[in-house]
Amino acid sequence: MRLRNKPWAKEKLLNYPQFVVHHPETWKEKWHDLFGNNHPIHIEIGTGKGRFITEMAKANPEINYIGIEAYTSVIVSALDRAIEAEVPNLKLLNMNAQKLIGVFGPGEIDRLYLNFSDPWPKNKHEKRRLTYKSFLDMYAKVLVSGGELHFKTDNQALFEYSLISFSEYGLKLKYISLDLHNSDFQGNIMTEYEEKFSQKGNRIYRCEVQFPTISK
Amino acid sequence: MRLRNKPWAKEKLLNYPQFVVHHPETWKEKWHDLFGNNHPIHIEIGTGKGRFITEMAKANPEINYIGIEAYTSVIVSALDRAIEAEVPNLKLLNMNAQKLIGVFGPGEIDRLYLNFSDPWPKNKHEKRRLTYKSFLDMYAKVLVSGGELHFKTDNQALFEYSLISFSEYGLKLKYISLDLHNSDFQGNIMTEYEEKFSQKGNRIYRCEVQFPTISK
Repeated sequence: MRLRNKPWAKEKLLNYPQFVVHHPETWKEKWHDLFGNNHPIHIEIGTGKGRFITEMAKANPEINYIGIEAYTSVIVSALDRAIEAEVPNLKLLNMNAQKLIGVFGPGEIDRLYLNFSDPWPKNKHEKRRLTYKSFLDMYAKVLVSGGELHFKTDNQALFEYSLISFSEYGLKLKYISLDLHNSDFQGNIMTEYEEKFSQKGNRIYRCEVQFPTISK
Repeated sequence: MRLRNKPWAKEKLLNYPQFVVHHPETWKEKWHDLFGNNHPIHIEIGTGKGRFITEMAKANPEINYIGIEAYTSVIVSALDRAIEAEVPNLKLLNMNAQKLIGVFGPGEIDRLYLNFSDPWPKNKHEKRRLTYKSFLDMYAKVLVSGGELHFKTDNQALFEYSLISFSEYGLKLKYISLDLHNSDFQGNIMTEYEEKFSQKGNRIYRCEVQFPTISK
């Protein structure tokens, strides 16, 4: 996505601490305290302009959602949605996914969403793909035993790559659709990107994989 | 496929014992003797009119191929191709895949091909799909440790079902293409069905999965 420079974005994020969590590492192993309940925590990595995570938070008040986005100029749009939705079960983190381990304790997360992640098509950038094994290592650490990763993309090559990466890592495929918008999947919440690119005729691929159920 | 009654087919199969193996159960654990070499054995279940297996046999003389087809009126077309190709590394079996265990010994097969298998779309017919777990059980018994299953289909629902069935069974996904004819996969040999339905615009899906490497 083309990024506009928004010099005011940083300050705006600071003005809404009820939605944007600053110094998230201080909440490691205490996220349930922050939410004030023991509901499951679902995170989205690369939350973009926040439509998916905000709609999910509205639809599922018994789940706590955390949207993670590296770009300040993008997450500020997610903040606008959060402000409008006024949902208590949504937090936003302006940080890079590489910092996941420093921010969440072992088994603190119940589910992880990846939606239309950057495909990084060049082989030399494989390690940057959010389904590369080093990221799966991180997810395995923060997810509960048997936790799930739900993944959507319109990028065929990234989807193929990810299915093999998941299998090599020992994850179980629980659900797959090779044409989500023409499937019987119920309750799909579209991202901004998904709406735009499916209207152009792109197929949407979706899968759910489960991490091993082991004691940590 | 619509089947024509061919009353002469049975007799024709009997007339070509160099290609069509009668009483295949008598060759259990002795297939290398029948071929007269120790080359790897690859089988195709549902070999249809035999274009795939015959072309593979011509292209790979150092592999022994066995095509298995239940319908007499269909395999007789495969026999015609075998006669024309005059390849020594191809045998045809007119039998149902359910009999696999009675015909091949443990680890006797190196690779198994499924091409455009009957999708059996109704849930109540799930057990008939050649990627259902009871078939995977049979394949696991006749395949070598770490043996592979290579699968092609244009049926999206069967492909999705099969990917989940493979994962549940603990098979590793080694290769996947969600649009084979627009991929960089080299050396694809088309089946009769594949040529016809890809010309109609159907996508061809393909994957390779590996059975566990364990001692038998």
